[in-house]
Amino acid sequence: MVDTVCIIGIGLIGGSLAGGLRSRDWCKTIIGIDVDEQTIADARRLKIIDQGFTRVADCEFTPDVVVVAVPLSYVRSVFAETRHWFASCKAYTDVGSTKLSVLQDLASEFDGKVPACFVPGHPIAGREQNGVLAAVDNLFVDRKVILTPNTGTSADSIALVREMWQQLGAHVEQLDAETHDQILAATSHLPHAIAFALVHCLSTQTHTPEIFRYAAGGFADFTRIASSDPIVWRDICLANRHELLKAIDDFDSNLKQLRTSLENGDGDALQSIFLRAKNARDEYNGS
Amino acid sequence: MVDTVCIIGIGLIGGSLAGGLRSRDWCKTIIGIDVDEQTIADARRLKIIDQGFTRVADCEFTPDVVVVAVPLSYVRSVFAETRHWFASCKAYTDVGSTKLSVLQDLASEFDGKVPACFVPGHPIAGREQNGVLAAVDNLFVDRKVILTPNTGTSADSIALVREMWQQLGAHVEQLDAETHDQILAATSHLPHAIAFALVHCLSTQTHTPEIFRYAAGGFADFTRIASSDPIVWRDICLANRHELLKAIDDFDSNLKQLRTSLENGDGDALQSIFLRAKNARDEYNGS
Repeated sequence: MVDTVCIIGIGLIGGSLAGGLRSRDWCKTIIGIDVDEQTIADARRLKIIDQGFTRVADCEFTPDVVVVAVPLSYVRSVFAETRHWFASCKAYTDVGSTKLSVLQDLASEFDGKVPACFVPGHPIAGREQNGVLAAVDNLFVDRKVILTPNTGTSADSIALVREMWQQLGAHVEQLDAETHDQILAATSHLPHAIAFALVHCLSTQTHTPEIFRYAAGGFADFTRIASSDPIVWRDICLANRHELLKAIDDFDSNLKQLRTSLENGDGDALQSIFLRAKNARDEYNGS
Repeated sequence: MVDTVCIIGIGLIGGSLAGGLRSRDWCKTIIGIDVDEQTIADARRLKIIDQGFTRVADCEFTPDVVVVAVPLSYVRSVFAETRHWFASCKAYTDVGSTKLSVLQDLASEFDGKVPACFVPGHPIAGREQNGVLAAVDNLFVDRKVILTPNTGTSADSIALVREMWQQLGAHVEQLDAETHDQILAATSHLPHAIAFALVHCLSTQTHTPEIFRYAAGGFADFTRIASSDPIVWRDICLANRHELLKAIDDFDSNLKQLRTSLENGDGDALQSIFLRAKNARDEYNGS
């Protein structure tokens, strides 16, 4: 059994991880670190952490497993503050939505070399609400968690992180970090960028109140992700900038093709785009 | 009580209307007309219509209420075939997602004048699935139905169409046709165009199978509307072409603004776009 798990960043993901581990008794002690005092107080009140600190320096525990769950722009400073734990812990992992940037942040702290205990991770899970009060124990049940270790990663550390997520009901898979970032750019980062741009666009129209008033269920679904945390998503977009720019350009040329068909009144071309999209979604959705 | 209702086009909307009226006993007889023999057979088997015909010419009934529920590109020919009913019926309505094009189609059949019994209508309701087999009696419960009559429309006809939808649990509202088309371009037609373009884009990538494999719930929500009927949406886009082109251009300039901020690594600008989008969605969603 694992003795001590330390989770740094007790938001929706970190808090749900803490709650999930607690309810499944995977470890003896759960330490929470978060810069926000209220968050620590809430997490203690919810009994999802045993001890809480607002600064790493105040924590005298030596955790077996460390999980960093802060917005991507804060990851590097967390690595610096917790540098001493990399030598002592059994596994150190993260939950970032991009993986190359996290590996780069870590390598920068260790003279270009990523410590063997570090297992990059990304649980593909979320909710519309943010913060520790939105955390739920079963957030990761039947969700995919992607790990992106490389040849230098400790097999024991990988096994431990895998076991942690499986305890929470997640399906753990492995990809290389570069492929992860390419796939997530398309499947998550691009849709978020589009949803933010769309809602931003609609919020500045003459008919803005009516637009939202007459919106149907499909619109609510479509724009739900535009309610995501602006700071988290600023960081994700910047961290995966290269792949996201390519994805935006690719989408834009598809939208232009549709626009041209529409402007030309070319019903056959429109129908063909719509049909191929429908077939792709129906095929993959059913598989 | 209304004697005979004739629904032309027994797809998801027409079929759900028939089923809803049947289960609420709003009229004595429901006639279904659809070019597809199998659809007529299915609708009869489901007992949502009493009589069915594949051609208007074969129908000897004189309906009190006529509802046209075919894709927009077929509306004009339906008006032509049912020309004789405009003089005899109490109300004639439609369910088209655009209203100016329908009014124009009808005016073209009547020397530029829209008959007083015609009440343009648009139930804002739908499902991922299409066709009569996807029809459900309660599709319109708590949904909005927008009517766009003008000063020449018969008050009795408006009242009758309003009563029909209210019987099905819908909330009936009125707008002018032009405003309707502008609002729906933003809230429905643009999101559909974007979803189709996005899924089309993702279906042609190197990593297409992985993209769909690792897609999370947000992605499924976001792309659900790309499973909509390609012919119905081809017709809607073409019928509201002018407003939709404006909406696409407006969205595109918002996406470009986001792209520029991303390319410049301007985190403040990105965060500001995301925050305004989130605030708008949260505000209107909660209201």
